[in-house]
Amino acid sequence: MSTLPFAAPGARAEVEEGAAFMPRFDRDGLVACIAVDAGDGRVLMLAHMNAESLARTLETGEAWYWSRSRGELWHKGATSGQIQRVIEMRVDCDQDAVLIRVSVGGDGGCCHTGRRDCFYRSVSLDPASGRAVLRVAAERQPDPRAAGA
Amino acid sequence: MSTLPFAAPGARAEVEEGAAFMPRFDRDGLVACIAVDAGDGRVLMLAHMNAESLARTLETGEAWYWSRSRGELWHKGATSGQIQRVIEMRVDCDQDAVLIRVSVGGDGGCCHTGRRDCFYRSVSLDPASGRAVLRVAAERQPDPRAAGA
Repeated sequence: MSTLPFAAPGARAEVEEGAAFMPRFDRDGLVACIAVDAGDGRVLMLAHMNAESLARTLETGEAWYWSRSRGELWHKGATSGQIQRVIEMRVDCDQDAVLIRVSVGGDGGCCHTGRRDCFYRSVSLDPASGRAVLRVAAERQPDPRAAGA
Repeated sequence: MSTLPFAAPGARAEVEEGAAFMPRFDRDGLVACIAVDAGDGRVLMLAHMNAESLARTLETGEAWYWSRSRGELWHKGATSGQIQRVIEMRVDCDQDAVLIRVSVGGDGGCCHTGRRDCFYRSVSLDPASGRAVLRVAAERQPDPRAAGA
């Protein structure tokens, strides 16, 4: 990709309040990306994007990540069908993280373990041992607003 | 903190399906942490935790981060009052990211710019210039389920 559609980071006021997208990549050239289901707001996954995957995501409207484990561009869903169509992208105050609201293709799943999202285990301290233990979490409670609460 | 309440990463099956919390810190000793409002599910911020901040979060029930910019432990809300009480912690499939559902103290805000959350700007490509531009986003749409959709 010859020309990237975003700028190099400027002064703090520009980064926080300006109208230019100037992602602040870390020393590995990555920003964190949170993917949220556009339908119900559930956090699906956290992954990373480099400049090229961020540009492709903006230009194609589908989520492209950088796979840190494989060291390669990763068009999410290219093999599984779980394409993430980007309904909206947001950036945070210091422009080192993005959030995408996505509509998920295929079977609607996201996690490579077969689950709908990657955050399927809760973490808590076991009082007896003082160790942190994991439990597969029940599906999220329905949004209380849906019940008129 | 002498003893950490979690284990070193094990084999992949243990990491993905086991009952032990074995956070996979990156080479800077950090995991990403997504903070979500426990009330309405809104993504508030993304920050990082090192082993000590993660342990303190588990042990105190309040969010402690590692400030990459200041290079120090950061008890969120210690000065602003915007303490994040952790209702639930989750970990993702490969245990390199955590998600906390929090109840926010003080004025209920989160972002240092004074906004409720850090993701207050949308990113989109300007068709005329081909550049990515930011717009301060309207408050989120109400959850469609709340309207019976």
